[in-house]
Amino acid sequence: MNSRSPVGKAGSLAYVSTPGRVADPEEGISLEELALAARNHGLPLEALRYDVTPPGLHYVLVHYDIPYVPPAEADMWTLTVRGRVRTPLTLDLTALRSLPSVTHRVTMECAGNGRARLTPRPVSQPWLVEAVGTADWTGVPLRRLLAEAGVEPDAVEAVFTGADHGVERGVEQDYQRSLTLADAMAADPEVLVAYEMNGAPLPPQHGHPLRLVAPGWYGMAHVKWLRDITLTDTPFAGFQQAVAYRYRRTPDEPGDPVTRIEPRALMIPPGFPDFMSRTRVVHPGPLRLSGRAWSGRAPVTKVEVSTDDGDSWELAELAPSDDGHAWSWRRWHASWTAAPGHHTLTARATDAEGTAQPLTQPWNRGGFGNNLVQRIPVICLEP
Amino acid sequence: MNSRSPVGKAGSLAYVSTPGRVADPEEGISLEELALAARNHGLPLEALRYDVTPPGLHYVLVHYDIPYVPPAEADMWTLTVRGRVRTPLTLDLTALRSLPSVTHRVTMECAGNGRARLTPRPVSQPWLVEAVGTADWTGVPLRRLLAEAGVEPDAVEAVFTGADHGVERGVEQDYQRSLTLADAMAADPEVLVAYEMNGAPLPPQHGHPLRLVAPGWYGMAHVKWLRDITLTDTPFAGFQQAVAYRYRRTPDEPGDPVTRIEPRALMIPPGFPDFMSRTRVVHPGPLRLSGRAWSGRAPVTKVEVSTDDGDSWELAELAPSDDGHAWSWRRWHASWTAAPGHHTLTARATDAEGTAQPLTQPWNRGGFGNNLVQRIPVICLEP
Repeated sequence: MNSRSPVGKAGSLAYVSTPGRVADPEEGISLEELALAARNHGLPLEALRYDVTPPGLHYVLVHYDIPYVPPAEADMWTLTVRGRVRTPLTLDLTALRSLPSVTHRVTMECAGNGRARLTPRPVSQPWLVEAVGTADWTGVPLRRLLAEAGVEPDAVEAVFTGADHGVERGVEQDYQRSLTLADAMAADPEVLVAYEMNGAPLPPQHGHPLRLVAPGWYGMAHVKWLRDITLTDTPFAGFQQAVAYRYRRTPDEPGDPVTRIEPRALMIPPGFPDFMSRTRVVHPGPLRLSGRAWSGRAPVTKVEVSTDDGDSWELAELAPSDDGHAWSWRRWHASWTAAPGHHTLTARATDAEGTAQPLTQPWNRGGFGNNLVQRIPVICLEP
Repeated sequence: MNSRSPVGKAGSLAYVSTPGRVADPEEGISLEELALAARNHGLPLEALRYDVTPPGLHYVLVHYDIPYVPPAEADMWTLTVRGRVRTPLTLDLTALRSLPSVTHRVTMECAGNGRARLTPRPVSQPWLVEAVGTADWTGVPLRRLLAEAGVEPDAVEAVFTGADHGVERGVEQDYQRSLTLADAMAADPEVLVAYEMNGAPLPPQHGHPLRLVAPGWYGMAHVKWLRDITLTDTPFAGFQQAVAYRYRRTPDEPGDPVTRIEPRALMIPPGFPDFMSRTRVVHPGPLRLSGRAWSGRAPVTKVEVSTDDGDSWELAELAPSDDGHAWSWRRWHASWTAAPGHHTLTARATDAEGTAQPLTQPWNRGGFGNNLVQRIPVICLEP
């Protein structure tokens, strides 16, 4: 059930999916891409103001349909833990809630964030820069569940299966991703089997009633509507691991896996917007520029701001890092004295591994990990 | 502050906005339209299953930025009621909450829903069919507030001002809309000054802490982040009333105002989707088709379903109308025996005024009120 190959006859899955492609140079966004943009959504950038993103403002990307779980059935949702374990587990939500829980504040970002700004543009969910959000996730540490089940010595990966079901590139599947056993058992970042977002049950679109949360990883790793965890003695080769979510320049190369979040800074667009162009309008004088910065690889150590489209940069002030929230974004701010005319504002994050956001974009065919700096056009009015 | 005309010099608002336009015949969705689609969002159609739409799944359209109200300041939010009244009122949220409240279940839809399916396509927020949602709104009936203030005999309209501020077509403005005094004072539909959505404080994107709810009206009438109600002795001629939200075929005609919601039925797409095309996949055999239907003009009296792209139609079964929820959608269902091959499913609503959804689309330049029937491509697999 989890994976079927396409077959060639009429009324078969071969007719359901079109091949992956990049758009022609002059091609606008297609209605198919728009259908994804209309149902999924990003963080309105002014919502960078919230330390913790309210549901409905946090980005959402759903591959297939949001599974419907009637309220009366949520407590009976079961998670199985099986495969290369000594004692397979079957836990319903009530049992999971009775285990010791932890809460992690995690900044989550879609691996495809920035895709629609690439040239040529990979055709898929067309994010600009807004596919991000930060939430407090509460649940049971995965390593504690696996310890309870007893990991067999030959286990190498944990495979996570969600209840969302669909077709992608001709392959019918339940959404599945894996982590290495080392990542699954790590103390930091600590992976959670989460049942609360911001202190409330998960909203439907965020995995109600149960999801994986893998701090530091792009969104594809945080399997929603989590039903099963299977430990395997071979690496997982399912669609979302081996076919999708690979950094590739050509369609046929195996590519490198998409894993942790690349560093990024986003600025709260200052002033007020034009409805259609989203161009920002400010009045002359001193302004405080602020925003957030994060990396899924290492703590952000530096944010630089440019108000002249990258010709010159100055250091922003980073808010103190909160030791309890190593995998959450950091607030930053800088000062700017706006003068009448047109300006382009931008910000650039660097993390403790020395990785900085690029000023020109390396390209890959899936449009993954595109952390090119944000550019905000601003018009400062005459006094 | 509420309305400024564009001026022509550099660093002026004339450079912020571009003129309204329709897209060229072959022109894809632009990055400007995509920026709106990425921050606003529709109802994922599988969420038609919920009688009351959870926040985050209910459609959202924000003209400018979501105003930020720090939690500690929400209770101090004040609403003024003034103009052609005997006793101007200033009420904070605590005072409003102490007044007798009512709850109305209301289906709300964006006036621009369906815009992106028009040919030629008006360039604005590019909705397909999903800009809808239903919520339980709790607040104080507007007619009771106005009665308390005492309406002067010469009052003809109530003008509502929100805290959201931006530029549109060169006009800087706080978002403002009006209702006639008759509509503002009506017992049914009863307009609310609402502070709760689904039993909780309004989410930021739905007007926190206070909004207007005008049952039966397209979304532009439900002014969010409501700060002021002013009764006037002349009809309101502000931008959102006299320039935007008019049914026009040419740019220069005055046009007719966009008011109540046209009838529409939407079907929950059956089976499961392809990620990219959203084409639905089903297996052969009997299927239950279901969805919702609504009209802001009169109760929905009929839903017809076609499984052959409109060649033939059969009546769907309408769930009983709930007398307490006259302005909420109605559930409907129909049966279909799927046979292998390609199918196009569609549904069509008719209301008690005899208005039915069109099968071919009348066009207007703003892309408003486009209630052309939904079309769902389905592939039924071989057994």
